[in-house]
Amino acid sequence: MRKGLRARHAEIPELTTRRLSIYLRCLEILDAAGVETVSSRELADQFHLNSAQFRKDLAYFGEFGVRGLGYRVSDLKTQLVEILGLNRQIRMAIIGGGNLGTALADYTGFNSSRYRVVALFDSDPAKIGTTSRGGVQVQDVRQLAQQVREQAVDIVVLAVPAGAAQAVLDQAAEAGVQAVLNFVPARLKVPEGVRLKSVDLKVQVEALVFHLARLEQSEAASARTPTGR
Amino acid sequence: MRKGLRARHAEIPELTTRRLSIYLRCLEILDAAGVETVSSRELADQFHLNSAQFRKDLAYFGEFGVRGLGYRVSDLKTQLVEILGLNRQIRMAIIGGGNLGTALADYTGFNSSRYRVVALFDSDPAKIGTTSRGGVQVQDVRQLAQQVREQAVDIVVLAVPAGAAQAVLDQAAEAGVQAVLNFVPARLKVPEGVRLKSVDLKVQVEALVFHLARLEQSEAASARTPTGR
Repeated sequence: MRKGLRARHAEIPELTTRRLSIYLRCLEILDAAGVETVSSRELADQFHLNSAQFRKDLAYFGEFGVRGLGYRVSDLKTQLVEILGLNRQIRMAIIGGGNLGTALADYTGFNSSRYRVVALFDSDPAKIGTTSRGGVQVQDVRQLAQQVREQAVDIVVLAVPAGAAQAVLDQAAEAGVQAVLNFVPARLKVPEGVRLKSVDLKVQVEALVFHLARLEQSEAASARTPTGR
Repeated sequence: MRKGLRARHAEIPELTTRRLSIYLRCLEILDAAGVETVSSRELADQFHLNSAQFRKDLAYFGEFGVRGLGYRVSDLKTQLVEILGLNRQIRMAIIGGGNLGTALADYTGFNSSRYRVVALFDSDPAKIGTTSRGGVQVQDVRQLAQQVREQAVDIVVLAVPAGAAQAVLDQAAEAGVQAVLNFVPARLKVPEGVRLKSVDLKVQVEALVFHLARLEQSEAASARTPTGR
């Protein structure tokens, strides 16, 4: 039973998750406006969604609608909040007290009602005991396992040098960490029981590069036509 | 003519760009294997692509196939490299010499044959003249316009405090910068002629949070069933 459930959940595509976030935002708007029930078609019309897709996305998680009535806005909102794991604060620990790790520890997006950086680790004695500008103290990475337990860390962020990444990842896995956000540009063997998401900032640049290439090509094209300036 | 071209280009969806990158990788594989021509169907079959989507994506940029023959692998590869702007090195300047800016200046992904960080700027006299670990010198942000010209900067990366972001963005636009990658969590008014892409690292965490929520729910479910351990 457990295995079956896990397997089913593991197959939920990331795009579904993103759409669930959008549905939640729509429901919040309706709820704030005092709307009590909504059909998938009404929801789709009002927010330019695909109603079949909406029903399919929800079907991953069970039966939510009431026949002939549609969805109870407030109930569905609560259920989406739970499904998306938004009903509690996410506690993060950052490993690597260099420039990137320190920047991430103080990153506004990681320090809100929703997320909190509770610990920052390094192995360098010169860094241990110092404090980031935002007030996060650098601790000895040898205390990782203990701190993960005591501070109830949900997500570990890897911001160490490439050569240290695998050892640190294994250490985090042994400490029981189940989710890792990786900023290290290195091929890592992901330990069993760990979900690792790697962030490649190059990808963010690619859309801009494409835009620049388009600009250049249209400028070249306009230079070749008599109507161009 | 020029306006028409620009407008058409501006409408190309980001997902198309990503797919073009995938097509390019497939063509590189075929080219390396000595394949000279390929039909959209063969390409689709071999790499699990959608052949109609492939033809539609290419149609944005003109006519590439040869009737009855398909595509010349090597030619199409060259054309995609150009369309994607991959035929030259992209030169980046980072504004903000704090932890994040310095980390980005030394980021491996931004320093390859493809990308190069050519300048790092700050307004703090204590930082100006210092050098990042990777060897990028911090320059006075008042020299931005001059450096953008002299160093042929393609993309500016914003990594300044939120309060300074708008002024710095305007300054970059005045210096003729057409593409900006923004790490500042602030609402910015984007100057005309500038394409701005904002990076929100929170988004990267959300997929992990969802994964954790699923784990918790399946554990709770298995605890309620007699077959659960």
